Amino acid sequence: MENFIFQNPTKLVFGKGMIARLGELIPAGKRVMVTFGGGSVRRNGVYDEVCAALAGRDTVEFWGIEPNPSIETLREAIALGKEREVDFLLAVGGGSVIDGTKLIAAGLLYDGDAWELVRKGASQRTVPLGTVLTIPATGSEMNNGAVISRRETKEKYPFYGNYPLFSILDPEKTFTLPQRQVACGLADTFVHVMEQYMTVAGQSRVMDRWAEGILQTLVEIAPEIRKNQHDYDLMADFMLSATMGLNGFIAMGVAQDWATHMIGHELTALHGLTHGATLAIVLPGTLRVLSAQKGDKLLQYGERVWGITTGERDERIRLAIERTEGFFRSLGLSTRLSEEGIGEETIAEIERRFDARGARYGEARNVDGAMARRILEACR
Amino acid sequence: MENFIFQNPTKLVFGKGMIARLGELIPAGKRVMVTFGGGSVRRNGVYDEVCAALAGRDTVEFWGIEPNPSIETLREAIALGKEREVDFLLAVGGGSVIDGTKLIAAGLLYDGDAWELVRKGASQRTVPLGTVLTIPATGSEMNNGAVISRRETKEKYPFYGNYPLFSILDPEKTFTLPQRQVACGLADTFVHVMEQYMTVAGQSRVMDRWAEGILQTLVEIAPEIRKNQHDYDLMADFMLSATMGLNGFIAMGVAQDWATHMIGHELTALHGLTHGATLAIVLPGTLRVLSAQKGDKLLQYGERVWGITTGERDERIRLAIERTEGFFRSLGLSTRLSEEGIGEETIAEIERRFDARGARYGEARNVDGAMARRILEACR
Repeated sequence: MENFIFQNPTKLVFGKGMIARLGELIPAGKRVMVTFGGGSVRRNGVYDEVCAALAGRDTVEFWGIEPNPSIETLREAIALGKEREVDFLLAVGGGSVIDGTKLIAAGLLYDGDAWELVRKGASQRTVPLGTVLTIPATGSEMNNGAVISRRETKEKYPFYGNYPLFSILDPEKTFTLPQRQVACGLADTFVHVMEQYMTVAGQSRVMDRWAEGILQTLVEIAPEIRKNQHDYDLMADFMLSATMGLNGFIAMGVAQDWATHMIGHELTALHGLTHGATLAIVLPGTLRVLSAQKGDKLLQYGERVWGITTGERDERIRLAIERTEGFFRSLGLSTRLSEEGIGEETIAEIERRFDARGARYGEARNVDGAMARRILEACR
Repeated sequence: MENFIFQNPTKLVFGKGMIARLGELIPAGKRVMVTFGGGSVRRNGVYDEVCAALAGRDTVEFWGIEPNPSIETLREAIALGKEREVDFLLAVGGGSVIDGTKLIAAGLLYDGDAWELVRKGASQRTVPLGTVLTIPATGSEMNNGAVISRRETKEKYPFYGNYPLFSILDPEKTFTLPQRQVACGLADTFVHVMEQYMTVAGQSRVMDRWAEGILQTLVEIAPEIRKNQHDYDLMADFMLSATMGLNGFIAMGVAQDWATHMIGHELTALHGLTHGATLAIVLPGTLRVLSAQKGDKLLQYGERVWGITTGERDERIRLAIERTEGFFRSLGLSTRLSEEGIGEETIAEIERRFDARGARYGEARNVDGAMARRILEACR
């Protein structure tokens, strides 16, 4: 096991009716800017519950943080927040709203253009932030990460701000999510775990078990959720798994990969494809190309997550990857670039971008432009 | 899944050489009281590393916090801390030193006798506290709980104070622990997980998997640790498992039991038996007596932790309990009261104490005096 420092201060407020706790969670006397996405919260009751919980509080609303939040939109929010002198942020929505609000939180205390914060990559100086999560997927509700896009140049980069002070997760609010959003959330969660797990075997038995525990849970619940999104316990396990998948709890002392994410971000930046959908395409390719390097872990994964216990080593590895791709397909997601009309032009552009920034992703730091091309060619 | 609120602010600083970080972890300008147990830290290098890291800092030492820390000793520490006006505490040792220091932290800001804090059961007003853990077992390094004894009356009660600001865990410092201490630590960790897991089936799939993941890890590493305590990765997994076993990470939204602990505390209070050793005796008895109530979960546990997949339901449950008792025996621990010379007199006293306080422990609130007797009789 590698040395590590772990700390996650976010208060998780989980369950039915918990949005009503907002009043006590936000410190008194704060001027709160509440940030929203496109308006689905008006239809599922979340907006009304938030308004009721904040009745009598000093609030400003900002609407319209889009999927893959753009610096162009966030600049407007930062300007409004500065003008109204807000000193607390409440993100109400999915990962995009929360990600965007993390940049707003830093931007409010920054004099320059907030895109500079993204390119610098981190900011600890932020306005405090709480969240009401409506889409289980990104884990942003309990980590300090965000991904910010720039429409103008079709770029998309990670940004690290501060942890939410609290996050409210009410599984009932996920009952009415569009099925495709649920599918992408399941895929996103699955791949988050894989990025922290599918690396080197024999690093930490307990971290392996925890990562496998989330994967096993997703594999079990996904088909049931496809049939019935109104089962509270199923959606609660989905929601909790998504949060646990990217809050540091399964990353202690182990190597991490993230090459699939970095390639996926480019597909979103260039084609607007939903984040989870890009991962469902790229991960099987990553596993196919790096199956030798990741072989021991793929064997363990095949056995523990997919019950593959017989056959030759190569056959078992091949089957584990096949089952992974099959899982994404069972969610109704594409797993090949051709299904999304993506071809050589995009592969060449991603290779160029990786080379231009001297990319060396993955646990072995060997995913550069040429390797990204090989992976993308394996996803055709 | 039940509604829950989770927050754990402790910073975990894990790995080789991490004690050297003490200087940066303790805020400047603090007068630090460093608390110790009996002196093993002088032999394993921990004391020297702590002193080197705190060179030039304003420190006071308090030695002699005993196993099952007593209010009698802790009163002395509180008096010294008040006299020297310390405003930071650093516990260096195992769970007993850390538990005791949590009470000191509250006692320093309390005008009355600190035993009143124990009997009231909680205190948020505390001096900040950090720890250097030397024995993986209690999980006290990453939670707000403690157990305090009163020698005078042979009593032992839980106390809830504050979370450590940070805890340093260096697995190398466990290499020289006495084998019995390691055995008790493994048993303690195992039973902590069982108290949060072996209750009601079907509450949360992901929490079940995480609990099982720690149990599976312990079952795998225990025999290897018995053979070689100097394997870094083994001891790192033991240390991490012990911390993860009782920091709230596996308790989200699920029922908890803790009856075994409450009975075990009485055995320690009355006979001075090491905490982990009491649990190895009581848990199999608890499972035997409550095997109908816990049946579905025992079946799941038998299958996932012990690989018991065939046979009639009752036979599988019986076997799962037998394997649990066998695990403790493989650690060299007693699993029967008679082996420790404990008989009817103690059973009667524990029944009396449970009745006197109106005890209703366990996830079904049915472990009262009479049930405690039945459990203890099943451990004879």
